[in-house]
Amino acid sequence: MDMKKILSIIVVLSMGVSVFAQNLWESNNVISPEVNPDNTVTFRFNAPSAKSVYVTGDFLPTTVVKVNGYNFKKPQDAPLEKNEAGIWEFTSNVLESGFYDYAFIVDSLRVTDPNNVYLHRDVAVVQNYFIVPGGIGDNYMTKDVAHGSLSSVWYHSDVLGKDRRMMIYTPAGYENGKGRYPVLYLLHGMGGDETAWSDGGRAVQILDNLISEGKVKPMIVVMPNGTTKHCAAPGETGEGMYKPYNSSSLDTSFEAHFKDVIAFVDSHYRTVRKKSSRAVAGLSMGGWHSLQLALNYTDTFDYVGLFSAYMGPGRDEGLGFMAPQMYENMDEKINTLYANGLKLMYIAIGRFDFLYAPNTAFRAKLDAAGHPYTYLETDGGHIWKNWRLYLCDFTQKLFK
Amino acid sequence: MDMKKILSIIVVLSMGVSVFAQNLWESNNVISPEVNPDNTVTFRFNAPSAKSVYVTGDFLPTTVVKVNGYNFKKPQDAPLEKNEAGIWEFTSNVLESGFYDYAFIVDSLRVTDPNNVYLHRDVAVVQNYFIVPGGIGDNYMTKDVAHGSLSSVWYHSDVLGKDRRMMIYTPAGYENGKGRYPVLYLLHGMGGDETAWSDGGRAVQILDNLISEGKVKPMIVVMPNGTTKHCAAPGETGEGMYKPYNSSSLDTSFEAHFKDVIAFVDSHYRTVRKKSSRAVAGLSMGGWHSLQLALNYTDTFDYVGLFSAYMGPGRDEGLGFMAPQMYENMDEKINTLYANGLKLMYIAIGRFDFLYAPNTAFRAKLDAAGHPYTYLETDGGHIWKNWRLYLCDFTQKLFK
Repeated sequence: MDMKKILSIIVVLSMGVSVFAQNLWESNNVISPEVNPDNTVTFRFNAPSAKSVYVTGDFLPTTVVKVNGYNFKKPQDAPLEKNEAGIWEFTSNVLESGFYDYAFIVDSLRVTDPNNVYLHRDVAVVQNYFIVPGGIGDNYMTKDVAHGSLSSVWYHSDVLGKDRRMMIYTPAGYENGKGRYPVLYLLHGMGGDETAWSDGGRAVQILDNLISEGKVKPMIVVMPNGTTKHCAAPGETGEGMYKPYNSSSLDTSFEAHFKDVIAFVDSHYRTVRKKSSRAVAGLSMGGWHSLQLALNYTDTFDYVGLFSAYMGPGRDEGLGFMAPQMYENMDEKINTLYANGLKLMYIAIGRFDFLYAPNTAFRAKLDAAGHPYTYLETDGGHIWKNWRLYLCDFTQKLFK
Repeated sequence: MDMKKILSIIVVLSMGVSVFAQNLWESNNVISPEVNPDNTVTFRFNAPSAKSVYVTGDFLPTTVVKVNGYNFKKPQDAPLEKNEAGIWEFTSNVLESGFYDYAFIVDSLRVTDPNNVYLHRDVAVVQNYFIVPGGIGDNYMTKDVAHGSLSSVWYHSDVLGKDRRMMIYTPAGYENGKGRYPVLYLLHGMGGDETAWSDGGRAVQILDNLISEGKVKPMIVVMPNGTTKHCAAPGETGEGMYKPYNSSSLDTSFEAHFKDVIAFVDSHYRTVRKKSSRAVAGLSMGGWHSLQLALNYTDTFDYVGLFSAYMGPGRDEGLGFMAPQMYENMDEKINTLYANGLKLMYIAIGRFDFLYAPNTAFRAKLDAAGHPYTYLETDGGHIWKNWRLYLCDFTQKLFK
């Protein structure tokens, strides 16, 4: 029995018996997606008996549709064409550099691409992705640079009375050095969890790449779970393998327990334990959390990042479930935050974001009070494309 | 605009625009899989226009088929039945407790379950999984016990001249304590990578659960990448997002560089730096690596675990690519290993494993030399079901 034969058997076997039914190695052995040198992307799908195959994704031209009375951009699904061998194929337009999601729709059934193992989960949806290089996408690629570590760690929250999980990034050099580092606390949105930023958010690649280029100061990035009902991401707790849903924490419990997060980080990592070396930023619900953390712990963070931030509503809209203390007296707290020497209030949002109006109102409030801030307005809506971009931009402004 | 409406929009939006095309939240809003109280499992798939839907997986009855002249067990795919609402459904037999893989086959197309975000990748195949409790499966579930940390860290190998990644598990208590811990080096098989044991191998859950029950000593588990051509798992290196393939290291380079792994672990973690507190174990190719590491560093490990181990062939079969020194003189090295006080040689294999014969020959060699070993023979073949079970068994015998 020759070596090659042994090798091929070992590999097939290590995948588990169920794979035999289909032998994916042969029947789907096409390259997909293929990012071409001209930044078009070719998708292929091996399904000789299918009647139609479409690709859908955020790289396609869009049309505007209304959802709950709001305008959203919907991709125009692109049909693949079948060749003589039964392989369906489609090549995109030239794409802007970036990180893109996609799925196939085969005879009306949405499926992932069996030739692409690169998937990310966002809330309850798992999608394939690809990266187009040559611009912002370069920040999202794993490159041969010095890499930081990523750890899932458990801390105890006295406030909540339970152990909770968070992801912690330490930059290249941390493991082998003795120096202390500033800390960015980076928060996810509603329905997300502590893995959101290191998964689809590409935080590890962004930090590795921008630090290696000298554009971002080496820093520790702490990504806690923003939903106090849960101890950790779906499947990582005793709650079982439930289907993720839109759980949230807008009752101040997340903010109240945050001192436990900081205490754990400052006692377990070589951090610079002062205000000028701490930043807090988040997307959507995490933007609201960031703002409230900054406003309620006014001697803690010198840098605040609001990415497509949720902006209330406050108690006066009848939301009795919100403990009032922490979300009240915002104007007064904003004055205190600035008086304490805040170095950066960073606000970023897409022109098409359904939270655009409340963010405009928040900026007007800052303007009226004479409080400076940095503002970035981009295309698109309430989407990861923007949040990855904001992280690249925001981190370059920290701790300098 | 009421809060519920805002919440539902935020959640939908945070998934990215491409999801709009299908609105997975509604069209596939069925529960699947559902592990029933009697340990049957119900699978559901929402596809009113499909002509046939089957489920395939390692929980099904099997038939024996020949692959490359060897007998393997192939699952008998089970047909789902469509109800009036267009939902396809199938309920399994009562299943033995365990961790199972599955996929759907819809009109001859193999797809993952859109209602189950729990997936694991093994080499180039991504599959859904579920766990049936009440026995061995309890070891694989995440429970409300004290949890260890899992970190991806990068170490430098002087021997290979490059940075490489590994996964490191530290047990509950490590973060908040000062004690030193024994170390298990745990190796993957051909085509696998440093994530194999912590992904489908369920090593984190196994260790967390068995340590919390007092059955396993708290230990650090180090999971390096066994393929020296690669620095890390697919997508985690500058090689790009290639499709994983059956890469291997059977040229002694992995064994030669292993001193760099141990040096990093012993200098960065609170380890007990002696032979009696080190174990090495691996599956398939990783079993061969484990044996060779034990034989070539005979003062390093007191515990060796060979799970469905690959057992050569040696140099005399014309495999010129193998550097001879490390894989030669096995009998002599085995004698030295035992003379140095080896505490456990653990050999485990399935009766149906295609590597059964060479493992039998290896045991005969130990028997002939009068070297004791612990042997576990199980049902089934060269499959993860066995390797997870062996890890549960092996770890209970360590450092006691």
